[in-house]
Amino acid sequence: MDKILALRPDESQPTPLYLQLARNLEAAIHAGQWKAEQALPSERNLSEWLGISRVTSRKALEVLLEQGLIRRNQGSGTFITPRLEQPLSRLSSFSEMLRSKGFVPGSQWLERHITLPSHEELIRLALSPSAQVARLKRLRKADNTVMAIEMSTLPASLLPEPEKVGDSLYEYLDGIGRPVVRALQHIRAINASPEFAALVGIEPGTAMLLMTRVGYLEDNTPIELTDTYCRDDYYDFVAELRR
Amino acid sequence: MDKILALRPDESQPTPLYLQLARNLEAAIHAGQWKAEQALPSERNLSEWLGISRVTSRKALEVLLEQGLIRRNQGSGTFITPRLEQPLSRLSSFSEMLRSKGFVPGSQWLERHITLPSHEELIRLALSPSAQVARLKRLRKADNTVMAIEMSTLPASLLPEPEKVGDSLYEYLDGIGRPVVRALQHIRAINASPEFAALVGIEPGTAMLLMTRVGYLEDNTPIELTDTYCRDDYYDFVAELRR
Repeated sequence: MDKILALRPDESQPTPLYLQLARNLEAAIHAGQWKAEQALPSERNLSEWLGISRVTSRKALEVLLEQGLIRRNQGSGTFITPRLEQPLSRLSSFSEMLRSKGFVPGSQWLERHITLPSHEELIRLALSPSAQVARLKRLRKADNTVMAIEMSTLPASLLPEPEKVGDSLYEYLDGIGRPVVRALQHIRAINASPEFAALVGIEPGTAMLLMTRVGYLEDNTPIELTDTYCRDDYYDFVAELRR
Repeated sequence: MDKILALRPDESQPTPLYLQLARNLEAAIHAGQWKAEQALPSERNLSEWLGISRVTSRKALEVLLEQGLIRRNQGSGTFITPRLEQPLSRLSSFSEMLRSKGFVPGSQWLERHITLPSHEELIRLALSPSAQVARLKRLRKADNTVMAIEMSTLPASLLPEPEKVGDSLYEYLDGIGRPVVRALQHIRAINASPEFAALVGIEPGTAMLLMTRVGYLEDNTPIELTDTYCRDDYYDFVAELRR
């Protein structure tokens, strides 16, 4: 209840009450005071508890809806949108990142096997033409929500038994003394194929973010090619730019 | 012709000739030896000039097609895809970035006027409720290709005459002693609306990248909100990540 009362707008300020409430709510969500998929208080409860009008509560929630911070489910209220803010400067594993936000990371394996590389993999991993690769394909989950489809390719010489990789590929590579220390990541927008749309639970054609990563060992050997197809509504890629 | 001969694969190497040729072509394109929309030599010419088989040329070009580095136009040959590699760490103006790549930057203004801010603009620019804003909307061009739609909002107190902004907003702000020195950028994938699709010349619904930027002055005042809707096939956002 304290966290609700802390949202109360200040009538002595010149800023409209609904804007104050919206800013306070936004700050509280960013500070992690509500977890993803948690319900916010209803307009009616907000109004009663904070001693403000229904119009003020409604307009404040509309600002958050516009920003995509919350989502309205027909009949069942207003929920915090699960968004993973992912900085585009630090290389952190999906599992690490989720744990740091209080989610339970999970993987559902779709493929884990040794196979022949494609032309592109041969070039980008600087493989010899006869080399084989380990291919990993999985759904990445936060709690039980499917966030992304991830496909990684590594030289089979490095990962001869891909079924030994657990939830975190990076932790596995750390464990065998081959940590990825640097990566180059490209970001694209793609329309979801029917297959991928079904896997992550969106309409075919919906825009998704495709992150294509090449990961390098300390000695600059490229050892990891990963394509991650991310649900746009769950990911928030952020970069800080300086001149 | 020298730039063609430099592509010749080395038969004494164990790497297949088509892969060598693909790698050499890729390096030459990245080094800027062909400009965007320039035609590559045909399979037949590549084969004759380099003394290699048609199959080798074809397979090399297929690798580049797969990577999106080149594009085939029905009947008229193979062209270099114009791609703007934009680092996600340095804040550079669109105009600066294009000039550094040898393109001629251009803008086609769609709107430049003073108006009232939206709720979100009021919050994100920390404006007083009675403040007005300057709104700029334009097509961004490289040579004559429309790359993106850009919409910027700045406090009207900073930019009372938005029609005075030329090709580069950042150069204008530098000129009035209010340079943007830092920005926070969020990246999303969206489906092009019919209006935006028509403006940039793609099918409605095609996935585009939406960059949302807040630019700050040296004293941390937010002064610029910019949404840039980028054609995915022309932009290549790159981040280098370290652990």
